[in-house]
Order: sequence, then structure tokens, then C-alpha cells
Amino acid sequence: MEVSLAELAALVGGQLEAPAERRVSGLKGLEEAGPGDLAFLANPRYARLLPQCRAGAVLVKPDQPVPEGLPVIRVADPYLAFAKVLTFATAKPHQALGVHPRALVEEGASLGAEVSVHALAYVGAGAVLGDRVVLHPQVYVGPGVTIGADTVLHPGVVVYHGCRIGQRCIIHAGTVIGADGYGFAPDGDRHFKIPQVGVVQIDDDVELGALNTIDRAATARTWIQSGVKTDDHVHIAHNCVVGENTLLVAQVGVSGSTKVGRNVIMAGQAGSSGHLTIGDRAVIGPQSGLAKDVAPGATVTGTPAMPHQLWLRTRKLIERLPELFDRVRNLEKARDQQ
Amino acid sequence: MEVSLAELAALVGGQLEAPAERRVSGLKGLEEAGPGDLAFLANPRYARLLPQCRAGAVLVKPDQPVPEGLPVIRVADPYLAFAKVLTFATAKPHQALGVHPRALVEEGASLGAEVSVHALAYVGAGAVLGDRVVLHPQVYVGPGVTIGADTVLHPGVVVYHGCRIGQRCIIHAGTVIGADGYGFAPDGDRHFKIPQVGVVQIDDDVELGALNTIDRAATARTWIQSGVKTDDHVHIAHNCVVGENTLLVAQVGVSGSTKVGRNVIMAGQAGSSGHLTIGDRAVIGPQSGLAKDVAPGATVTGTPAMPHQLWLRTRKLIERLPELFDRVRNLEKARDQQ
Amino acid sequence: MEVSLAELAALVGGQLEAPAERRVSGLKGLEEAGPGDLAFLANPRYARLLPQCRAGAVLVKPDQPVPEGLPVIRVADPYLAFAKVLTFATAKPHQALGVHPRALVEEGASLGAEVSVHALAYVGAGAVLGDRVVLHPQVYVGPGVTIGADTVLHPGVVVYHGCRIGQRCIIHAGTVIGADGYGFAPDGDRHFKIPQVGVVQIDDDVELGALNTIDRAATARTWIQSGVKTDDHVHIAHNCVVGENTLLVAQVGVSGSTKVGRNVIMAGQAGSSGHLTIGDRAVIGPQSGLAKDVAPGATVTGTPAMPHQLWLRTRKLIERLPELFDRVRNLEKARDQQ
Repeated sequence: MEVSLAELAALVGGQLEAPAERRVSGLKGLEEAGPGDLAFLANPRYARLLPQCRAGAVLVKPDQPVPEGLPVIRVADPYLAFAKVLTFATAKPHQALGVHPRALVEEGASLGAEVSVHALAYVGAGAVLGDRVVLHPQVYVGPGVTIGADTVLHPGVVVYHGCRIGQRCIIHAGTVIGADGYGFAPDGDRHFKIPQVGVVQIDDDVELGALNTIDRAATARTWIQSGVKTDDHVHIAHNCVVGENTLLVAQVGVSGSTKVGRNVIMAGQAGSSGHLTIGDRAVIGPQSGLAKDVAPGATVTGTPAMPHQLWLRTRKLIERLPELFDRVRNLEKARDQQ
Repeated sequence: MEVSLAELAALVGGQLEAPAERRVSGLKGLEEAGPGDLAFLANPRYARLLPQCRAGAVLVKPDQPVPEGLPVIRVADPYLAFAKVLTFATAKPHQALGVHPRALVEEGASLGAEVSVHALAYVGAGAVLGDRVVLHPQVYVGPGVTIGADTVLHPGVVVYHGCRIGQRCIIHAGTVIGADGYGFAPDGDRHFKIPQVGVVQIDDDVELGALNTIDRAATARTWIQSGVKTDDHVHIAHNCVVGENTLLVAQVGVSGSTKVGRNVIMAGQAGSSGHLTIGDRAVIGPQSGLAKDVAPGATVTGTPAMPHQLWLRTRKLIERLPELFDRVRNLEKARDQQ
Repeated sequence: MEVSLAELAALVGGQLEAPAERRVSGLKGLEEAGPGDLAFLANPRYARLLPQCRAGAVLVKPDQPVPEGLPVIRVADPYLAFAKVLTFATAKPHQALGVHPRALVEEGASLGAEVSVHALAYVGAGAVLGDRVVLHPQVYVGPGVTIGADTVLHPGVVVYHGCRIGQRCIIHAGTVIGADGYGFAPDGDRHFKIPQVGVVQIDDDVELGALNTIDRAATARTWIQSGVKTDDHVHIAHNCVVGENTLLVAQVGVSGSTKVGRNVIMAGQAGSSGHLTIGDRAVIGPQSGLAKDVAPGATVTGTPAMPHQLWLRTRKLIERLPELFDRVRNLEKARDQQ
């Protein structure tokens, strides 16, 4: 990156209070930045560093007092602005490799413009890859799979037949999309497999961490809506719906047919029973276990989950149970001596 | 599928009360089904839909009252029967691909009749594949592995050297069978690796979900018995035995040398300590943690696990701990004022 | 293996009380061992088996009383000594395959002496493999990755660009090293991806189980120090440090920027919040959830974690909550009747 402050201000939608033509090429902390670097101030605690700051420009909030002469770009969210500049600075131009001779693309697959199908990747018959799709080595794209433009599948990702992935998605290594949902009918002592004839549909701008499993539906679809971001080792069972922009942290598991709302957060190792509804903007604490629906906007924790504030109080009281048993015994002694 | 009602009745072992030669070709819900479709009634709640039902035939229980003239097939378990028909309808004839030229089969491997070894799969020296085995792309079958007839390994499955898999098994993508068990001997501050010289043995009719790990034994075998079905992300440590027809739901972990009985259910995210015995037909609740043996037929929940009914009571009482502390304080005040 | 007792005594650093030139070729239990086998006695409970023991030699502790004439090798830790002999007996000489013609090594990769790059493995541009590195089939080594001498990557392991792995490491199948850390900045209802421009550094003598995820750092490095051993399904988030010789058991998850000390044990399914410090030699019980720092040497359990002894007491009292509520109700009745 080497870019003028005017260009940076335009990139982040900020107001420039610095020489428009000055150029910076690095991103550094407030203390390390020199005249050729951009820095940012998000946490007001670090405002004390501004007087000594030598940065070429600093991203600050609109109302941030700054020393006279300090070059700044004022922007509503300096941290977000910094992330946008970092993305700009580290972006690499798309390089279309085409289909590597050591990849295997079956007859009848359809490839968009400027795709990259790396060595040892596999694309099944009838699959459709949008423009600029990148399949890293050892990716498996099954027959009839559809992948939208600008989506990247990292090494070893597996997408079973017939599943659909949107545009601008990022799927990290080893994630498995569309394996059979876990469905069996009792047949005496044995278990008879219910064919899983649905698919997985993943909408646009979804990022899935490494080693996720998103199971195909029994019928119809398991549906991951746009903007969802998952961490590693996340499991979504058959026929679930995960609403827009929801965050599922590492090792979360969601059982079958549960509907997770929009902008929900499920913290690490949390789990949900099947056939539940988790309302929009709910927050589920780490390791929590959901046995019933969660209201929109609620924050719950524990197994089974309870309101977070109640959980905090009960956790402290559990540690005091030995004391409570002693106190009750003392009360009983006093009663018995009367 | 296009099949006569007589053939369907034979398939599900049911009693036909409809024209034997009538043919159906679809499977639909009671409300959507038309004269060319089969429907089923498992939950009596939906019996109210029967009068309007236009299906070519309906699978119902032996004692289900039905409107006069409604064509039915009476069968002990209509849901199971429906699953069998769905399986019949969606089954695809086995297509033997042989060994794809882009697969790699080492010298000295032995392949049964009509196998399919897809592109980019690997079969080690001395491996033995039974008839009609299917290895999807990017599967790894190590040296000396044995795989029984009609077993399917989905993309990216890894089977380490010397492990044995039975007939008619389904192993979903990315599952790892036979990695070293987690065994170390303390050597001062460091950990000395104990060689894991055993294997994994998987019997017939086992289905393993995606991204499971079944570790090889320190010596002898880790043993998954016939009919076991696991969900995704399940971990079975070295030297465990998992009994026939047991169900292990997603993200379950079983520590080393534990013996899980037959027809056990371990619900999602449950875990077991090592060297335990879990009796036949026990049910372990979600997220439970086992620290001691579980009796046959017991239903337990919690960490550490307790009888499920006790768990339900204590969970409600935990939510009332703030109230209980208040009540004890009031009692103490009353005592002190005497 | 066929080896003299003198050689074995030297191998384990033990004191020989048996004919130096006697040769053994097997390793067996005290009861099964014959004159050509080595056995060991670690647990004093089994000393009763010594009089009937027919082994060619027995590994025993320095102060172990033994029947007259029983050939023994005395050593401080007979179990560790047995593990060392077993390792010696099962070790296979390194066989350098070179680069298999069906592997893909990009231009500009650098390979040490006697490497084995198996069929269908991928090595990116600028990667550096040390001497005797083994890449099993379907391994992915990204551009610029460095792998130290004698390290083995099992099938399907993925190492993203720029990560560094030390010497004598063992990485089991399907493990993903260097996927993006889970970092997003809020952007209205949506989540803006923070580029993860750091790497993963893994030091020497680390063993990672199957299907682990070690995420790359936002900046700088996620750092797994020497001698760490992980079980399967372990998740280490971005910017964590895991100290030397620490043990992470199956399905453990460590959130971002947490520092785990040396010789820590985190038992199965335990999890830690982010930005914590877990002191050296701490022990974290199974399924525990850490919400704050853990002191060096502490043993904690529960969610949130408490001292293990307190946890044991409170767990028993939780089961007695129904009784406690009854007792308090009785006290209240007595008070009200006064």
C-alpha cells in the first residue's frame, strides 16, 4: 500500500484534517507510527499518547480532542475504519489460475470467468462455479453443487452433491457441507436410516471456520443466511435455519430443525436442543445448553439456560452451599434446644 | 420410483386395503398428496386430515379408523414403513467405476468386484477392499486396511494402517479412523509417547458422521460394534468399546478404555471419563459428564451425572437459591431476636 | 527386535541383574511372558505375580524385592522404561520416498535430504521442508510454510501459508493449522472481517491429535511451545500461547489471546474465555469453563471454575438441595407456630 490521505479519507468515509496529498504506506500503533504510517485511536484511554504521536495521520472519533497540528481523519468508528484500511492494504489482486492440469473437473461442470481450480481439487458433474471462484488444493465439490461468484474454498473443504453456496463466501479448511443429517427410525433394536434428500443452502457473505459440519436436510434445506460467521468446529444439524449476521463461536452445536434468529451470538461450546426457536439478537453464554426457546434480545447462560443475571447470582451462591448447609444445621439445633 | 401398491405392501410388510394394481410414483404429506402419491400417518394428531386426503394410498397403523373408501396400507410402524419406501424410492443402482486413472492404488492392494475408487483417492499396499466398496475422492486408505463389501467412504475420510471396517458401513467426510491414541508416560517435565500399536475395528452396518475421530488402541483394538450410528464431531478414544446399535450424538467424547453398552444413547456434547462402564440401554443427557459407571437402563444427566429426575428437580432449585438464602437469613434474624 | 539384556539396560539407563548376553525379542505381560520376552512391574499390586514369572527379564523399581534368581533390570520408572523399549521395538527405519510423481511440489519450494512427499500431497511455493520430513497423502503445505526436520504430517493435514512447524513434530490427520482467527468488527448489523495477518508457530517435539484447529494470529503469532501434546478436536484460537509440555485433552477449546502456562493439563471438553492467563502446572477439570485467570499450580473445576475440592463438595450438596428446601420449610413452620 502507498496511498494519499485523501484516498484513505474517502475509503473510510472520514473527514480529513491533514494534508490531502500526504502519502502513507504502513499501519502502526500510536507509539510506533512514523510520518509514513497511519495509526488509530479507538479506546479513549490511549488519548494520552497523542501528544507524542509522530504518525502521518491518525484515525480518531469525530469529537476527539487532539493536539494542535496533529494530522487526523475523523470517522465514526476508528476501529472499523482501521480494519477497512488493513483490508485494503493486505488485499491481493485476484489471480485466475484457471483449472490446474492436476485438478479434476468432471464433464458437464460449468465454470465462470477467471476461476482458480488448484491442483488436486475435484469438481463433480453438473457443478456450477461462479466468476472468480477459488478452489484450493484437495477441495471436493460434488455433483450439481452451485458456488456463487468470488467465493473461496480453502484446502480440504467438502461440499456434497446438490448443495448451494452464495457469493463472496469464505469456507475454511476441512469444513464439510452437506453430509447426511442424523436421522434414523427405530426398527426393533436397530436403527433404520432415513434418507436425507434435502440440501444445504448457504447465502452470500457467509464465512465458515475450519472443520465445521453443516448437515444436509432430511427434506428441503438446511439454511445459513447471509452474513453468518462461524468459528471452528461448529456443528449445524439438518433442517436448521441460522439467521442473517448471526455469530456462532467455536465448538457450538445446534440440533436439528432449530431456528436461530438474526444477529444472535452463541458463545463457545454452547449447544441447543432440536426444534427450538432462538429469537433475534439473543446472546447465549459459553457452554450453555438450551432446552427451550429463547426470547428475542434475551441473554441467557447455564445448562439449562437461565437469564444471565440470575445465572451469575446462582453461581456465587453455589460456592456458598457448604456455608448454607451449616447455617441451616445451626438453625435446626437452636430450634431443637427450645 | 413407479410401483404398485401390492409391491409397496410387500416392501413394508403391510396389509393392503386398496387396489393392488394401482401405481404411485411420489411421496408426499397428507395434505399435498394426490392420486399418484403415497402418504403416511404416524402421529394420531393428524388423523383429522384423512377425510380430505386424496393420496393414492396412506400408510396407517393397524387399528387406525379411516374414512370409507380411503386406500390404505396397514403396518405396525407407518413412520418406519415410510422410511423404507423413501429408501427404496431414492436408492440408486450401484455404478462400479473401477479405479479412476487419477486415483492411486499401491501395489499389493486387493480389490473386490465392482469397486469404485474415485479420482484422487489413495489405497495403500496390502489394503483389501470388498465388493462394491466406494471410495470417494481424496479418501485415504492406509496400508493393510480391510474394508468390507458395500461400504462407502465419503470424501476426505482417513483410515490409518491396519484398521478394519465391516460391511455396509457409511463413513462421512473427513472422519479419521485409527490416529494414535493419546498416551504418554511422564518423563520429568516432558511426556514420552507410548507407541499405539493396536488398531480400530468397526463392525458391520455402522454409520459414522462427518469429522469423527476413532483412535487406534494402545494394544489390541478400539471396537465399534455393529449397528452403531454416530453424529458429527464424535470422539472415541483408544481401547474403547461401543456396543451394538448405540447412538452417539454430535460432539460426544468418550475417554480411553471406556465400555459403552448396547443401545445406549449419549446426547449431544456429553462426555465420559476413561475406564468406565456404561450399561446397556442407558441414556446420557446432553452436555452431561460421566465420572463413574452408569447402570444398565439408567437415565442420567448433569456434570457429574445424576439420575435425570433428580437433575430436573435440582436445576429448578438452583434457580431459587437467591430466595433460599433470603429465607435462611430471615430465620436467623427471628432466632437472634428471641 | 532381538536385543541383549545389556543393550536394553543401556537403553533404559537401568541396572542389570541378569545375564548380560541373554537375548529377548518380545514384550509381554508378567503372566504371558516366556524366556524370550521382556516384562515390567510398575504397579506394586502385581508383585504377587513375580514368583511364577518366566520372563527373560523384568523391569522393576530399584527397591523392588524379587524372588531369588529372577532376572531383572532395575530402573527408576519401569513404565517409562517399558515405553522406551516398546518405542525401540516398534520403530521403523526412515524410508525416504523422495517426491512421489503424483505429489505436487510447486516451483521454489525447498526440500531437505531424505524427505517423503507422498502421492497427492501438495507443497506450495517457497515452502521449506527439513530433512526426513514426511508428508502423507493429501497433505497441504501452503506457500512459505517452514517444517523442521523429522516432522511427520499425517493424511489430510492442512498448513496455511507462512506458518512454521518445528522439528520432530507429529501432526495427526485432518488437523488445520493457520486458518483465519475469528475476528470481526461490528459494522451496523453486519460484521466486517479483520484481516488475520499473523501466523502459527509450533515449536519442537509437539504432537497434535487429529482434527485440531490452531488459528493464525491477527498479527504476530499463535504460539504452541515445545513438547505440547494435544488430543483430538482441540481448538486454539488466534494469538494464544500454549506453554511447554502442556497437555490439552480431547475437544478442549481455548479462546483468543489466552496464555496457557507450562505443564498445564486441561481435561476433556474444558474451555477457556479469551485474554486469560492460566498459570504453570494448573490442572483444569473436564468440561470446566474458565472465566478468569487460574493461579499457577491450582486445580479447578466447574463452570465457572472453582477450586476442585470446593467443586466436589458443592456437587454433592446440589444433589441434596431438595432436602435442604424441605428443612428450611420445616424451620419456617416451627418459627411461624411460635
